Amino acid sequence: MENTQFRLAARPVGLPKDSDWQITKEPVRELADGEVLVKTHYLSLDPAMRGWMNDAKSYIRPVGIGEVMRAGGLGEVIASKSPRFAVGDQVGGGFGVQQYWIGAADDRHAALHKIDTRLAPATTWLNTLGMPGMTAYFGLIEVGMPKAGETVVVSGAAGAVGQTVGQVAKQLGCRVVGIAGGKAKCDWVVNELGFDACIDYKGGDVRSGLKEHCPNGVDVYFDNVGGDILDIVLTRINMKARIVICGAISQYNNTTPVKGPANYLSLLVNRARMEGMVVFDYADRYHVAVAALGKWLQEGKIKSREDVVQGIEKFPQALTMLFEGKNFGKLVLQVA
Amino acid sequence: MENTQFRLAARPVGLPKDSDWQITKEPVRELADGEVLVKTHYLSLDPAMRGWMNDAKSYIRPVGIGEVMRAGGLGEVIASKSPRFAVGDQVGGGFGVQQYWIGAADDRHAALHKIDTRLAPATTWLNTLGMPGMTAYFGLIEVGMPKAGETVVVSGAAGAVGQTVGQVAKQLGCRVVGIAGGKAKCDWVVNELGFDACIDYKGGDVRSGLKEHCPNGVDVYFDNVGGDILDIVLTRINMKARIVICGAISQYNNTTPVKGPANYLSLLVNRARMEGMVVFDYADRYHVAVAALGKWLQEGKIKSREDVVQGIEKFPQALTMLFEGKNFGKLVLQVA
Repeated sequence: MENTQFRLAARPVGLPKDSDWQITKEPVRELADGEVLVKTHYLSLDPAMRGWMNDAKSYIRPVGIGEVMRAGGLGEVIASKSPRFAVGDQVGGGFGVQQYWIGAADDRHAALHKIDTRLAPATTWLNTLGMPGMTAYFGLIEVGMPKAGETVVVSGAAGAVGQTVGQVAKQLGCRVVGIAGGKAKCDWVVNELGFDACIDYKGGDVRSGLKEHCPNGVDVYFDNVGGDILDIVLTRINMKARIVICGAISQYNNTTPVKGPANYLSLLVNRARMEGMVVFDYADRYHVAVAALGKWLQEGKIKSREDVVQGIEKFPQALTMLFEGKNFGKLVLQVA
Repeated sequence: MENTQFRLAARPVGLPKDSDWQITKEPVRELADGEVLVKTHYLSLDPAMRGWMNDAKSYIRPVGIGEVMRAGGLGEVIASKSPRFAVGDQVGGGFGVQQYWIGAADDRHAALHKIDTRLAPATTWLNTLGMPGMTAYFGLIEVGMPKAGETVVVSGAAGAVGQTVGQVAKQLGCRVVGIAGGKAKCDWVVNELGFDACIDYKGGDVRSGLKEHCPNGVDVYFDNVGGDILDIVLTRINMKARIVICGAISQYNNTTPVKGPANYLSLLVNRARMEGMVVFDYADRYHVAVAALGKWLQEGKIKSREDVVQGIEKFPQALTMLFEGKNFGKLVLQVA
């Protein structure tokens, strides 16, 4: 059995390009005791991957040159020498961008875990019930701390994290305004997800959109994009507002320094707070979020949308879709 | 009796210049019932005054063109038609840049209050026991939330707020590192105030200074200056660090946009927080801080230093000293 893998060949400058990847094919080796073999079905493509490709101190070790690119995924156990997993188990874990993963059942980095595809389809486990959902749930509730009646603004509103942030905020009784790129995405978050409004940053003016749709100002801003949009929202925040710094996709491929928020002194004037979050901190309570989000999904109160690209060979092109805002919903790579 | 006043003649572009001021002399009028007449002895000169001169939405109404410049001060009641104040009372309040203040004893904006010059000299009431001290005390304790053993860094360390921030942090058992301009200021905060170290941003490299003097990283950064120094400190913060945004004196006279903190994504990586504060929010608890700071002052555990400029006519030049870092300690204008 041959395992096709994407390895990091070079540290990208700006947007990753084909030559930053090396495709290797190696035979799948025999299992040692305690190990399992997983056939990868789906891989999660996330903006954070861009950060892992840089040789910089961050919340996680960079991917080394020559290493298989890190990625979360879903798959099926097709061989097992561990009592913890049986052939046929559907599992999630850090499988990397490859067709097969072999490792110890208790590998700390892979964090192999069974998933229940009766509760939700597999791809939902990479979205609302996976890292993006966990990020949205804990980032909004624990860092954003929205109260019913407050106004929550979320950028990347049709993306993996943004879609759940907005829907959870609606469940909590907030006014929710999204920011997304293009009419189709904006229509979707308003008409399908129930956001109160959505500002099309490609087709309109974010400043006047915020003025129109946040007549009482902004209490919580969940930021996935950084850059100019963060700066504009800073001009509209209320007293004691909370800004959740979840990501800054607009800045990840910069070859010039990151654009800092020039309007950060709005934090002073408004006694407001800007706080970063990393989802891994909440790992011991993922089950709480899965239970809550799973229930809302089953009741039809929230929805999830994935954008599935077929074929592991499409990995480099699919990844760049994220940074060009071309994905519509959580971006997933179907391996098989 | 003639009252010399400094009125705002024009909104400054960049550093305030002489032509931005109009000097007026008007007779002191008769008191109405409920009013008092205060002879101003000292005026507080603060970086925040620069913000009040801009026609921009902020935490306080801008000073209008033609109005007497807003300033906090200390003085003596020399005539009173209010039962609340007697001739000879030493009082603090928002007297403005003028020799005499007349107003209702209960004027909300002036916030007239008696001060006890037996507890501390008058100028200390504009410093450690005045707004700078209140800002330092509540900003550090309530927003910075330092724990014993943590490392606290404060910029503008020899300034009005910074000197008290560092000394209070020492009282709380923290390692304290100041950032100040020039060897004399640095020597003073270390040798006289007991800071563990001080980095001279004019004579040395802040980056390497932080590395040397904060071997365990930075847990709390109390920022009075903004700009490049904020950006450098962001590279050295610890997990769950707290950055108190108290001011940004390096940016107040910008004629170009404010420099936003390019390294703000360090907040994400470190799950850290940046939060603004305005001292007025703590007005109902000033007495708590005055009691604590007053006790430490009397016990000799903390010190206060004021830089007193003589003569109301020196007001414009004295104000610009702040922005050039020429004051050494809390800047005070002695009116009489």
